[in-house]
Amino acid sequence: MKICVAQLNYHIGNFESNLKKMMNAIEDAKSQNADIICFAELATCGYPPRDFLEFDDFIRLSNESIHQLQKMSHDIAIVVGSPSKNPRAEGKDLYNSVFFLYNGEIQHVQHKTLLPTYDVFDEYRYFDPADKFEVVSFKGKKIALTVCEDIWNIGNENPLYTICPMDEMMPHKPDLMINVSASPFSYSHAEERLHILRCNANRYKVPIFYVNQVGAQTELIFDGGSVVVSPDGVIYEEMSYFVEENKVFDLESVIRGGVKKEQPKDKIKDIHDALVLGLQDYFNKLGFAKAVLGLSGGIDSAITLVLAVRALGKDNVRVLMMPSQFSSQHSLDDALVLAEKLGIYYNIIPIKEMYDSFMIHLQPIFQDAPFNVTEENIQARIRGILNMAISNKFGNILLNTTNKSEMAVGYGTLYGDLCGGLSVIGDVYKTDVYRLAAYINKDENIIPQNTISKPPSAELRPNQKDSDSLPEYDILDPILYKYIEECKGPDEIIKEGFDETLVKRILRLVNINEFKRHQTAPVLRVTSKAFGVGRRMPIVGKYLS
Amino acid sequence: MKICVAQLNYHIGNFESNLKKMMNAIEDAKSQNADIICFAELATCGYPPRDFLEFDDFIRLSNESIHQLQKMSHDIAIVVGSPSKNPRAEGKDLYNSVFFLYNGEIQHVQHKTLLPTYDVFDEYRYFDPADKFEVVSFKGKKIALTVCEDIWNIGNENPLYTICPMDEMMPHKPDLMINVSASPFSYSHAEERLHILRCNANRYKVPIFYVNQVGAQTELIFDGGSVVVSPDGVIYEEMSYFVEENKVFDLESVIRGGVKKEQPKDKIKDIHDALVLGLQDYFNKLGFAKAVLGLSGGIDSAITLVLAVRALGKDNVRVLMMPSQFSSQHSLDDALVLAEKLGIYYNIIPIKEMYDSFMIHLQPIFQDAPFNVTEENIQARIRGILNMAISNKFGNILLNTTNKSEMAVGYGTLYGDLCGGLSVIGDVYKTDVYRLAAYINKDENIIPQNTISKPPSAELRPNQKDSDSLPEYDILDPILYKYIEECKGPDEIIKEGFDETLVKRILRLVNINEFKRHQTAPVLRVTSKAFGVGRRMPIVGKYLS
Repeated sequence: MKICVAQLNYHIGNFESNLKKMMNAIEDAKSQNADIICFAELATCGYPPRDFLEFDDFIRLSNESIHQLQKMSHDIAIVVGSPSKNPRAEGKDLYNSVFFLYNGEIQHVQHKTLLPTYDVFDEYRYFDPADKFEVVSFKGKKIALTVCEDIWNIGNENPLYTICPMDEMMPHKPDLMINVSASPFSYSHAEERLHILRCNANRYKVPIFYVNQVGAQTELIFDGGSVVVSPDGVIYEEMSYFVEENKVFDLESVIRGGVKKEQPKDKIKDIHDALVLGLQDYFNKLGFAKAVLGLSGGIDSAITLVLAVRALGKDNVRVLMMPSQFSSQHSLDDALVLAEKLGIYYNIIPIKEMYDSFMIHLQPIFQDAPFNVTEENIQARIRGILNMAISNKFGNILLNTTNKSEMAVGYGTLYGDLCGGLSVIGDVYKTDVYRLAAYINKDENIIPQNTISKPPSAELRPNQKDSDSLPEYDILDPILYKYIEECKGPDEIIKEGFDETLVKRILRLVNINEFKRHQTAPVLRVTSKAFGVGRRMPIVGKYLS
Repeated sequence: MKICVAQLNYHIGNFESNLKKMMNAIEDAKSQNADIICFAELATCGYPPRDFLEFDDFIRLSNESIHQLQKMSHDIAIVVGSPSKNPRAEGKDLYNSVFFLYNGEIQHVQHKTLLPTYDVFDEYRYFDPADKFEVVSFKGKKIALTVCEDIWNIGNENPLYTICPMDEMMPHKPDLMINVSASPFSYSHAEERLHILRCNANRYKVPIFYVNQVGAQTELIFDGGSVVVSPDGVIYEEMSYFVEENKVFDLESVIRGGVKKEQPKDKIKDIHDALVLGLQDYFNKLGFAKAVLGLSGGIDSAITLVLAVRALGKDNVRVLMMPSQFSSQHSLDDALVLAEKLGIYYNIIPIKEMYDSFMIHLQPIFQDAPFNVTEENIQARIRGILNMAISNKFGNILLNTTNKSEMAVGYGTLYGDLCGGLSVIGDVYKTDVYRLAAYINKDENIIPQNTISKPPSAELRPNQKDSDSLPEYDILDPILYKYIEECKGPDEIIKEGFDETLVKRILRLVNINEFKRHQTAPVLRVTSKAFGVGRRMPIVGKYLS
C-alpha cells in the first residue's frame, strides 16, 4: 500500500485555493499510484480559522469542499481535516474532524478528542471532544485516524488531559495510524514532535504517518516537517521544513524500517528560515508584494531589512533613512552601506524641520518644561508618519523592527517605532538578534561590522545608549526568558542568582508595558512563548507592578 | 439566619487591596449580625486574572489571602472565590473554586464545573472542571455552593454543556444556593441573568444568593446587580448596578417571599453608566487621574468628553482642538462651545504648518501623485502626535473617540485618530451615539445642537462627508449588528431585505480592516460582542474579503 503525505500551505477561509491545491496534490499522488493521500488538520478552511468558525456560512463552505473532494476519491482514498457539525443540542456546535473519503463517499469521520486550549490555541472555544473511537478498514488494513493533539498526551510528566484517544482505539487493533496536524513552529518544537512520535510508536507498535501543514497564518508559522515513523520508533523520514512537499511512501517498507532520515536542526538557521516564510506568507496571503521600513543604521532594522529582501526580493523593499539632530553620522553611513550592498531603493528625509515645527506649536503649552521622553517620542512618531506615508502612497506594508527584549520592557514608542503591519523580530531576543546577524554574515559581510559592534542606541537625545536605562542584554535576556517563557516568579529568578532589585525592576517594566504590546502588530512566533495571542495579560492588573 | 451579599470592586493581582476590602465588608457584616458573608468569583485575585494564573507565585498569593480570611472566620462564615491547585498530575493545574471558611478553617471547597470558553472567556485555558458535587452544612442548613456559569446551563435551547452541577447536588437536598459570580455587563445581560436565576429557583425550589463583582477590569465592565431570589422564582432583590454594596438579608424572609425588587432597565442609561464606570476604573486601577482627548466639534469626541468629565471630574480632563485647512469654522466653534460649557481646559493648535512641513519633505518622493488617503492620514497622525505629546508631558491618558461603526468598517487612521489608551465608545454604534447624546441632553443642552444635527464628517479633504464613502448609519448599523453580534452570513442578511452589493461591500470592509483593530486600544464592552478579546479573527484570512 502506498500512502502520500501532502504537506501543503493553506490559506484561512480561501476555500477555492485550498481545494485547488488539494486537487493538484491528488492528481500527483494518483500518478504515483498512491492508495491514500493525507492532508492536514482543518485543511479545507485553513488553520487556525478562529471565530470564522462561528459563522454557519463558513462551515457550509467547509462542507462544500469535502463534497468536492468526495468526487475525487474514486481511485484514491483521501484523509482530510475539516470542521463538522455536532448533531446534538448539548455541547459546542462543532467537532474538529478528520474525514476518510473513498469511492465518492464519506467512509468514516473521527473527531478530535484533546482540544488544546493554552498558549496560542483556543480549540475548546469551538469544538466538542470526541466520545467515540473507531478505526476505518481499507484494502485489508485497519487505520486509526487521529487529529494533532490527540497523540500528545503520552510521554509527558504533567499530562494535560485525562484521556488518551489512541489507547481507546487499540482494542480495534489498528495496523497503522494517520495523524493530521497543524502544529506551529517554535525553535524547540521539532525535537518535541519527534519525541512524542517515537513515544507513540513505542507504545502502539504501529507505523505512523504524521501530516503537518506548512506556511504562516499571520503570526503563526507552520514549519511542515511531516513525519513517517516505523513501528520500532525510528524516524523513517522527517520531511522538509518550511516548504510544500508531496511525498509517497510504501507502507511495507515503513513497517520493515531500517531507514532513518531526520532534518538537521539549528536554532538560528531555523529562526531565520521561519521568519522569511512568515514574511512571505503575510504578504502573499494579504495580496501585497512590497514592504517599507525605516533603516536606522542599528542592528534591528538591518536584520529586518535582510529578512525582508530574502522574503520579497530586493525590488519589493524600500527604506527610509530619517536622521535627526541626535543621529550620529555613522548611523546614516552604516544604513547607506547596507542599502547599497543589498541594492535596494532608499530615501533620506532629515526630520529636524518637522520636529521644530511641532516644538514651535507645543512651546506655548510646554513652556519651560525640560526635554524628556515626550520630545524623544515626537521624533519616533514623526518617523512613524513618514514610514506610513510611503506605505499609504505606494502600497508598501510597513515592517516593524522591534526586538523581543525591547518589546518586553517597553523600550519603544507607541505610534512611533512600534508602528508597522507585522513585527518581524518581535519574538527574537536581542542576544539572538546578534546571532542572526552572525548567521547572515557567515559567508559574506552583508550587515556592516560597525552596525554589529557599536553599542545599541535609540539616538533620541545626545549620546544616548540603551545601557543608560537597561542592563546589558546578556543579563536582561535571561531574566526575560525565565519570566516570559518559563513563567517563573521573582523569588525563583532571584534564587537562581540574579540581583533582586534588578529582577523586580525588570518584571515591573514587563508588566506595566502591557498596554503598549496590546497595540502593536502581530509578532512572528519563533519561541515557545511569543507576545500576542499566546500570552494574555490584564492591562489594569496590579501584579509585580 | 442572616446572609450578607458583598458586591465589591476588586483589582486584578492587587491582593492587598482586595483583602482589605473584604475585611472591611466582614466587619460591617458582623456589626449587622450576619451569619455568612459572600464574596465574588476569584475575589482574592480579581477576575479575569488571565495568564497571571500560570505563575505559581500568583497562586501562592491567592492562597495567602484565603489564609488571612480564615483568621477572620471565627464569628462569621465566609464564602469566597479563589483559584486552587489540582492535586492530580493529569488535567489542568488549577480549579476555579469557591471556599467556605468558618471557625478559622476551610470547611468546604467546591470547584467550578462549567468553564466558559467563548466570547471574552478563556476558563478552560486554566481550569479543570469539578468532578465532585457536595454541599456544606452550617447551623442546621445545607448549602449548595456554585460558581458563576454553573447555574447557566438550564433554560437554554442550545445548552453549551452536557452536565448541570446543581442537578448533581440535589440528592443532598440543599436548603439554599449561593452562587459566586464575575459576570460582565452588556446592555442585554441583566435580563438574561434574571431569567436564568428564575429558571434555577423554579427548578430547585430553593432560595438563591447570587453575588456578582462590580467594577471594570480594562475592557470588561462588571455591573454588580447581585440578586437574591425566593424559592418561588420571584426576584426578592436585585441590588444596585455599577456601585459597591454590602447588604444583609434574612434567609427566612427570603424563603417566605412576597417581596419583589428589580432595578429599572434602560439600554442607553445603562450604557452611559457603564462607560463612566469603565473610564473611572481604567484610570483608578492604573493609578492615573487625568485624561486628554482631541475635540473636533463632532459628536463622537463630544460624547467621549462628557463621559470623561463625568468619570474623572472637569479639572482632570483637557482637550486639544487641532483645526486643519479643511476644518470648517463651525467645527471649531462647536468644540469651543462644549469646552466652555463643561468648563474644561483647552488648547488650540492649528496643524497646517506641521502638515506643510511633512508635505515639503515628501514632495520629492511623491512628486505629482494626486492627493489621496495618504494626505488625509498625515493630518490625523499629526493630531495623534500632538495628543500624545500632551499625554507624555503632563501624564494624561489619551482617550480614543472612535465609535463601533467606524471601527467596524475601518473608517479611521491607524496611529492617528485610532490612538489612545482606552477606546471609550468603540462598542457603541453611531446610531446609539446619537441616542447617548439625547440622553446626555435630556435635562439641559450640554452637547451643542449643531454637533448633533450636522452631517458627520472627518474633514480631511474639502467638503468631505462620511456618507461619501459609507451608507447612512441607520442602514450600516443594522448590517453590522447582524454580522458582528448575530454572526449571520451574507446570504442570511441579504434574505432579510438588505441590498446584496451593499452587504457584501460592508462585510468585506469589516474583514479587511481586522489589521487596524488588532492595533487599537482596549474597547469598553457594552454589547454582547465587542471588538477585542471577545472577537478573534484571522488577519491574513480570505473570507468574504
